Amino acid sequence: MSKEITSRTTDYSQWYNDLILKGGLADYSAVRGCMVIKPYGYAIWENMRNELDRMFKETGHENAYFPLFVPKSLFEAEEKNAEGFAKECAIVTHYRLKADPENKGKLIVDPEAKLDEELVVRPTSEAIIWNTYKGWIQSYRDLPLLINQWANVVRWEMRTRLFLRTAEFLWQEGHTAHATSQEAVDETVQMLHVYATFAEEFMAMPVIKGVKSANERFAGAVDTYCIEALMQDGKALQAGTSHFLGQNFAKAFDVKFADKENKLDYVWATSWGVSTRLIGALVMAHSDDQGLILPPKLAPIQVVIVPIFKGEEQKQLIDEKVKILQQQLKLAGIRVKYDDNDNNRPGWKFAEYEMKGVPVRIAIGARDIANNVVEVARRDTKEKVTMSIDGLAENIIVLLNDIQTAIYNKAKSFRDEHITNANSWEEFVALLDGKAGFIAAHWDGTPETEDKIKELTKATIRCIPLDNTMEEGKCILTGNVSQQRVLFARAY
Amino acid sequence: MSKEITSRTTDYSQWYNDLILKGGLADYSAVRGCMVIKPYGYAIWENMRNELDRMFKETGHENAYFPLFVPKSLFEAEEKNAEGFAKECAIVTHYRLKADPENKGKLIVDPEAKLDEELVVRPTSEAIIWNTYKGWIQSYRDLPLLINQWANVVRWEMRTRLFLRTAEFLWQEGHTAHATSQEAVDETVQMLHVYATFAEEFMAMPVIKGVKSANERFAGAVDTYCIEALMQDGKALQAGTSHFLGQNFAKAFDVKFADKENKLDYVWATSWGVSTRLIGALVMAHSDDQGLILPPKLAPIQVVIVPIFKGEEQKQLIDEKVKILQQQLKLAGIRVKYDDNDNNRPGWKFAEYEMKGVPVRIAIGARDIANNVVEVARRDTKEKVTMSIDGLAENIIVLLNDIQTAIYNKAKSFRDEHITNANSWEEFVALLDGKAGFIAAHWDGTPETEDKIKELTKATIRCIPLDNTMEEGKCILTGNVSQQRVLFARAY
Repeated sequence: MSKEITSRTTDYSQWYNDLILKGGLADYSAVRGCMVIKPYGYAIWENMRNELDRMFKETGHENAYFPLFVPKSLFEAEEKNAEGFAKECAIVTHYRLKADPENKGKLIVDPEAKLDEELVVRPTSEAIIWNTYKGWIQSYRDLPLLINQWANVVRWEMRTRLFLRTAEFLWQEGHTAHATSQEAVDETVQMLHVYATFAEEFMAMPVIKGVKSANERFAGAVDTYCIEALMQDGKALQAGTSHFLGQNFAKAFDVKFADKENKLDYVWATSWGVSTRLIGALVMAHSDDQGLILPPKLAPIQVVIVPIFKGEEQKQLIDEKVKILQQQLKLAGIRVKYDDNDNNRPGWKFAEYEMKGVPVRIAIGARDIANNVVEVARRDTKEKVTMSIDGLAENIIVLLNDIQTAIYNKAKSFRDEHITNANSWEEFVALLDGKAGFIAAHWDGTPETEDKIKELTKATIRCIPLDNTMEEGKCILTGNVSQQRVLFARAY
Repeated sequence: MSKEITSRTTDYSQWYNDLILKGGLADYSAVRGCMVIKPYGYAIWENMRNELDRMFKETGHENAYFPLFVPKSLFEAEEKNAEGFAKECAIVTHYRLKADPENKGKLIVDPEAKLDEELVVRPTSEAIIWNTYKGWIQSYRDLPLLINQWANVVRWEMRTRLFLRTAEFLWQEGHTAHATSQEAVDETVQMLHVYATFAEEFMAMPVIKGVKSANERFAGAVDTYCIEALMQDGKALQAGTSHFLGQNFAKAFDVKFADKENKLDYVWATSWGVSTRLIGALVMAHSDDQGLILPPKLAPIQVVIVPIFKGEEQKQLIDEKVKILQQQLKLAGIRVKYDDNDNNRPGWKFAEYEMKGVPVRIAIGARDIANNVVEVARRDTKEKVTMSIDGLAENIIVLLNDIQTAIYNKAKSFRDEHITNANSWEEFVALLDGKAGFIAAHWDGTPETEDKIKELTKATIRCIPLDNTMEEGKCILTGNVSQQRVLFARAY
């Protein structure tokens, strides 16, 4: 075996780090809390980005780019937003270095190059964007304004995890402006559905669509919608959020529009985002103790071909055949790699591509060619079958679709088995420390109770599901009356 | 007319700003020196990025992502690079804001959240990347390492111009590592050719490939190769650079590899980049006093269809016909927009799409449909022709190709007419203040002479062309002996 991976049962957290590092997705960097996204990890992000970008454009959005820096006076304009992010902001205070007079070859910050107003490195862009929208929106004809941005953001975190929580991360942030409250709410919900579709159809990761309680709401939002996924250790992961911002930012930045009757009103807003955190979710949703398991729709390499040969003559024979096969697979739209690297043996390669989660491996030897077949192994179940070389591309497409469906179904069964009702505090606590997963329980609707539950158990309300059934009950902590169950979990 | 543009002869600089702002490419922001790239401008950047990214991948490169911040101690490791960029660095010194005790609702930088080591916002990423490569490269088997990054960078500039010179800009930066000097030089030159191909075939902008003099070299490079374009005011614009970095960064970050004989040596490096500055170049290369002229291969909208009608009945007839035509054009791979917005009249739309540089405009009325024709106008020459509706898509493809070629040829004629030999100081100065453009003149090869010429005339050596003919002569300033002419110009 090429590289050892800690098993999930031994140390789940170390298993995750092993997958990220040994799978070649990311690396630690010299900058506290910031990671390097390696080519294989970045290729997954590119595939995610391309699909999401297509979905955003199909729903009428355009991309734009706004400054990295937010002047402090703009940042503090929407008070709740500012308060929510103030503690995690990287601040630019100077714009020049100079030679250190006491230390040859070293540099110091030039005290004469102090900025009059400090700049916040954007932790999110509502402030700079709504300050810009003020100049772009005058009348109802300028609405709706449907803009998305692909960018890096910085949120200073004390405890970081590769992909899941890093000081800098890549994301997209949609920022839309509307003439009516209803239109903004519709947009918020539409984008939540886009995220859910992406998670389920591309990431093969089932999600619950819901709305956040006040405690977990985005700072500055009226309502935060979210998709919540379940990881294999029974912890939840928030995979995307879509916020109805009401008129909060329009008021903070004085963005008004004239309606058809020429009456002035503040504009209604939404914002929504997903980030490179999704890569962490993808890794934890499907992978096993041998390595990554990637859904075919997002895998950078969908099929790897490994030659099995003795001697140069066999190798040439295989090379010629693979050249044709590779061409056919590429024409069928399959991302295929032929690994004929001499430095490594087939067994090493098998383990390496298992580690990297390549959905399908094709092994081909001289005898296979004589029999007009190849050996096809799927990563998720490790099943091997012999397939005819004739019509291979068509059969591989079917197989890739099968794998995509199979890993979704597996994750969905696990998730569904891990949504459990708790009807008392004792049941609630026992579940959290035992089976874990989502726990559906009654809550009295107050932030104080939610805080108390979090303090006692580290569990939070992940969401109030959109399709919730109303059911009278009593809050598991206070016994006060409740109209519906909400989903609790410990979360990433 | 919808919007007034200053003419080139009245004020070239204002003409440029008018095109950017009124054409909807970018906007000023609240952050000094930073711009907002608006959707139409960003769509051009996306088209550029997609083509370049394809070309990078075809030449074996992969994308990755490295941190935005560079710790000061890493930044200063390669001394020449650090010295070159020190004066334009934005510096993060704190990681938290807190409520201002003296000013309710306001925030101040928390003095207790001062970083032990300041972070430089990357002006370029050699330092952070080579520090990372140290962990990735052990042996010749790890080489070549061919990585590109799409990112934002910050260079604090005192005088900024939209797209041409902004404090923050978007770019790509390739960073490669090689086992031999020759291989690194070959990579440097290969990427220069990629840039030149992109500039000429996609931007329709002829460029001169050359190498920089020592004065104009990238800080930390052994040699800087460049492509230089000529704008309509006779000033040059550096459109892309490709650097052979020798072993400078490998030595600064101690990156060694074991060769096949297990002998250790420092790794050889290149870096190369183009930025959103290319959008500024694109604008200035082709546009006229009516607005932008965009090359079809990069235009966000290649064809706009404008209906000409009286009454709802005619409108419906046209809508139905356009629906079919639009479908046919899209199937042929053409980016087409149907503008049936009721708020604006056809004349307003004609001016608007001229302003926005849409290569082809199709006008269609009820009588046209009766005659089975449409009116087709090309933006570059403003010629109008009547085209049959039958086979329209095929003919539009031919027309778009014709426009692409025509604007390249026009720019090339202009450029070729503006490369002039100067054989004396008097000729040189007269040309600079008269005809301008590139001036081919003898230079004695010393940095001192180049500095003096720059001081006297603001002209710099743009490059020593790669295909230069050797020719003995005398330096225009000092009269000292020279082996070849070099290209001078005033530049952006």
